[in-house]
Amino acid sequence: MTRSADRNHDITRVAVSTVIFTVRRTGDAISLSLPLVRRTRDPHEGQWALPGGWLDISESLDAAASRTLAETTGLQPSYLEQLYAFGAVDRSPSRVVSIVYWALLRQDDVDAQVAAHAAAGDAPENVAWFDATDLPGLAFDHNDIVDYALWRLRNKVGYSRIAHGLLADEFTLAELREVYEAILRRRLDPANFRRQAEGSGTLIPTERFRTGSHRPARLYRYNRDVELADHGPLGVRA
Amino acid sequence: MTRSADRNHDITRVAVSTVIFTVRRTGDAISLSLPLVRRTRDPHEGQWALPGGWLDISESLDAAASRTLAETTGLQPSYLEQLYAFGAVDRSPSRVVSIVYWALLRQDDVDAQVAAHAAAGDAPENVAWFDATDLPGLAFDHNDIVDYALWRLRNKVGYSRIAHGLLADEFTLAELREVYEAILRRRLDPANFRRQAEGSGTLIPTERFRTGSHRPARLYRYNRDVELADHGPLGVRA
Repeated sequence: MTRSADRNHDITRVAVSTVIFTVRRTGDAISLSLPLVRRTRDPHEGQWALPGGWLDISESLDAAASRTLAETTGLQPSYLEQLYAFGAVDRSPSRVVSIVYWALLRQDDVDAQVAAHAAAGDAPENVAWFDATDLPGLAFDHNDIVDYALWRLRNKVGYSRIAHGLLADEFTLAELREVYEAILRRRLDPANFRRQAEGSGTLIPTERFRTGSHRPARLYRYNRDVELADHGPLGVRA
Repeated sequence: MTRSADRNHDITRVAVSTVIFTVRRTGDAISLSLPLVRRTRDPHEGQWALPGGWLDISESLDAAASRTLAETTGLQPSYLEQLYAFGAVDRSPSRVVSIVYWALLRQDDVDAQVAAHAAAGDAPENVAWFDATDLPGLAFDHNDIVDYALWRLRNKVGYSRIAHGLLADEFTLAELREVYEAILRRRLDPANFRRQAEGSGTLIPTERFRTGSHRPARLYRYNRDVELADHGPLGVRA
């Protein structure tokens, strides 16, 4: 179409990468966690990087994100959402535009998928989980990508998506608040949080209660109508 | 990295396209409008398409969006925001991943830029403005792209961004409501709209008033602190 394109189109490559967030509980502490893959070749051999790979000529961006995530980590989220395209000229030794996807995955789903691969003897190699807010220096611009994903998670993700992506089907408001505290990295006032969450229209109270060492706490589930409406025309087509 | 990439990376190309929204007033009617460019070569010769072009090897995605928009339409928004990457396998005869940007542009800025190009004798050719909600069949998947941009505009754009992007520095709540009505394509209750807009924290009342045939209406300006905080880590780095 333009002279520069004729000269250059054969040396810009398209890759996909994926940021998978889950919450991990260690004793009383809850933290946001994501899987990384250790690179086994240059550039950045030996460094940790986001799961991903090259876009194949015959697959959509969404399919490439799912395939490369499964190939590198064995994980299969129920859906992946496109986050952003990163294309700085100097982000790789060769010119690479990376389309980045993200997903929220419940810890019990992660555990089940990891256990299934271990049982089948095809556990992925070179994968480890890291605290999302305390990462080592990653390959390429992947620290910047994680920072951007964390910012989007902190700013743009509503109650229903958090509940759907990171909690069991039914959860107490205290459990939901703990997840928010892990994401935001600060304590939230329980009464204020309850008022906002209940007023969001995205949570449905059940008649069931969590009992245990504390006084019984009502269980909630998220409102699927709200969640499904959030995908827009792309969701309908996908 | 993978065999498929070695085989295929030389035939996936990266393009950028841009959706520019403005509001146009015709008499009492206000409508959402966007510029399209008539294609002068195959594929889809003669059809209208979004402004855009190929990514150059030596420019960032943001720079490519600005450059190709200026080359095809002469328009220079104060900023462009990345919207989404479209990469369906069959969206073009060859494999093309398009990174789509969008911007909101005030009508007076559009008029000033168009007039400047006319005066300089370098007015762009093959450009026309269309009602965003009543488009002809566009080249490639560009109708889908506009639908997605409209959906994002309807769902995700807050009071301050609308005010900043589509209105003059100072505006009445009725003017802001009219813009919302053009975007949402339905009438809004003035009292409810006033309550929500005033409660949003993104509008600042001034001590000035619009006078004319109606009773004086207070002028507002948008809260730049809120708007600037919305760009996240990418905005800070850019």
